[in-house]
Amino acid sequence: MIAGADVEWIQTLDYIGTAVFAISGALAAGRKQMDVFGVVVLAMVTAVGGGTIRDMMLDNGAVFWLHATEYIWIVSAAAAVTMLVEKTTRVSSYRWLEFFDAAGLAVFTVIGVAKAQANGLSVEISLVFGVMTGTFGGLIRDVLANDVPHLLRREIYATASLSGGLCLVTLDYFGVAALTAILTAMAVVFVVRMAALYFKLSLPVFNYQGK
Amino acid sequence: MIAGADVEWIQTLDYIGTAVFAISGALAAGRKQMDVFGVVVLAMVTAVGGGTIRDMMLDNGAVFWLHATEYIWIVSAAAAVTMLVEKTTRVSSYRWLEFFDAAGLAVFTVIGVAKAQANGLSVEISLVFGVMTGTFGGLIRDVLANDVPHLLRREIYATASLSGGLCLVTLDYFGVAALTAILTAMAVVFVVRMAALYFKLSLPVFNYQGK
Amino acid sequence: MIAGADVEWIQTLDYIGTAVFAISGALAAGRKQMDVFGVVVLAMVTAVGGGTIRDMMLDNGAVFWLHATEYIWIVSAAAAVTMLVEKTTRVSSYRWLEFFDAAGLAVFTVIGVAKAQANGLSVEISLVFGVMTGTFGGLIRDVLANDVPHLLRREIYATASLSGGLCLVTLDYFGVAALTAILTAMAVVFVVRMAALYFKLSLPVFNYQGK
Repeated sequence: MIAGADVEWIQTLDYIGTAVFAISGALAAGRKQMDVFGVVVLAMVTAVGGGTIRDMMLDNGAVFWLHATEYIWIVSAAAAVTMLVEKTTRVSSYRWLEFFDAAGLAVFTVIGVAKAQANGLSVEISLVFGVMTGTFGGLIRDVLANDVPHLLRREIYATASLSGGLCLVTLDYFGVAALTAILTAMAVVFVVRMAALYFKLSLPVFNYQGK
Repeated sequence: MIAGADVEWIQTLDYIGTAVFAISGALAAGRKQMDVFGVVVLAMVTAVGGGTIRDMMLDNGAVFWLHATEYIWIVSAAAAVTMLVEKTTRVSSYRWLEFFDAAGLAVFTVIGVAKAQANGLSVEISLVFGVMTGTFGGLIRDVLANDVPHLLRREIYATASLSGGLCLVTLDYFGVAALTAILTAMAVVFVVRMAALYFKLSLPVFNYQGK
Repeated sequence: MIAGADVEWIQTLDYIGTAVFAISGALAAGRKQMDVFGVVVLAMVTAVGGGTIRDMMLDNGAVFWLHATEYIWIVSAAAAVTMLVEKTTRVSSYRWLEFFDAAGLAVFTVIGVAKAQANGLSVEISLVFGVMTGTFGGLIRDVLANDVPHLLRREIYATASLSGGLCLVTLDYFGVAALTAILTAMAVVFVVRMAALYFKLSLPVFNYQGK
């Protein structure tokens, strides 16, 4: 049962998701030529935004990073390393932003579903929490950096998150071990999203051009 | 007393408000040619956004849809029906978006005021909650769809919401039956808003063009 | 100890911060030629936005203005006076917006840090709360008014807030009286921010122009 998944595993995953989303936020800030502290702020909002909204909605005690100072340090370190690596390697490529964004989407989707399940929410609501936790940090990043939100772009994005969430609850339903289910679900999100970017996959579009 | 209004009535109204705001969100998504799942996401954010912020501020237990899976289904169904109807009828007209937005504004304003009153808040704060519940879902929709927010446009919008809220607390104060007061207040919001659109009514503007 | 600072002082400061941020919101609304009620709405969101998000995250009872009707009146009065003064004096200057924004940043940074400390949070998290309380109201104002957020502009902004927060916890650590520490920290934020605007000070920029 993912609701009872080894807490340490979830915790480690959460740190990893925080770091990769922080990197995506730092890169987005760099594209807007923000100053070094602005980079840290945007990295922070991206990395903890989704989980913060999730926790405020669950109303299950304090927001996760309130008594866990390490999140601030992980984000700051990830942002600093991102700037240093870019300064030395000059590998500037928009693809890195997408890569780290996809990784964060995968990790946080799974954590969102697991936390919702642990709070006794229904499967449907848990899937909504997965999509929300996975996408809202990046959404805030995109709105603040004045980019078109990933959530609203043509290539499959929220759908990748939903697929992974569905995979997780399905595997869990059939009694697959939590760790296997979690890793598989994350792989599903990541692969679906990267495939969508690579092959420019998209769902049918709803076109409503009324005046 | 609206605070003690028949809960079933409020519940039914809430479902209706959810459906009409979901339609407005789906239409806004269609204008940006989002994919079908993006349409559902924008419909959901629009439909439950205002009430979610209201509930997080009230801090009175969990957010309303957390243990009420039907909201997810109402939104999904409303979005699906919107796409199907448009596909078959091709009646595309921006006016439908405004029509459903006005209906949602009317319903959610009244529910916001009633919930605030039921939580023992003052009349002024209850009116703020009415405007907030009525306008924030649409506000998030407009920010995400990168439209100019209705809240900030020239035609009377928040003022329509405030008028209905004032009508509700006034009728309530004079002992009018809850149902009558609620229906009248909703009619006030809807009529004021539609009249503002039709006759292009607006309040005086504050112009501050300093450099 | 700032955590135990004279509550009345903090309360008075909070009213002042509310008023000055309301003025900055009203001026931002005037630059977009919003109608009079829209001006009040934007003033309100700017003035109470940062503290509202702070309180929702602290999850320490209701949001501060929920049972304190005076905030609504302070904001409305500040917005009304702003419109009247501008109507009679025509001093329109963008610098006034920046001036009041800097004053609000100073007051709310300090209140954010003090509230976080009073809730037993670590120094690092308290600094984050200071920056968050100080900047998020203006951030919402800028996003709604469709301006480039101050938080993301080139001149030192969040850094000014962080400097004041650091000053506050340092003075507090060395046992300086709460009132002295608070006034000094506010002066630091305000002076750093105004100096940054006047001398166009900025931190090094992170430039990431990958395609």
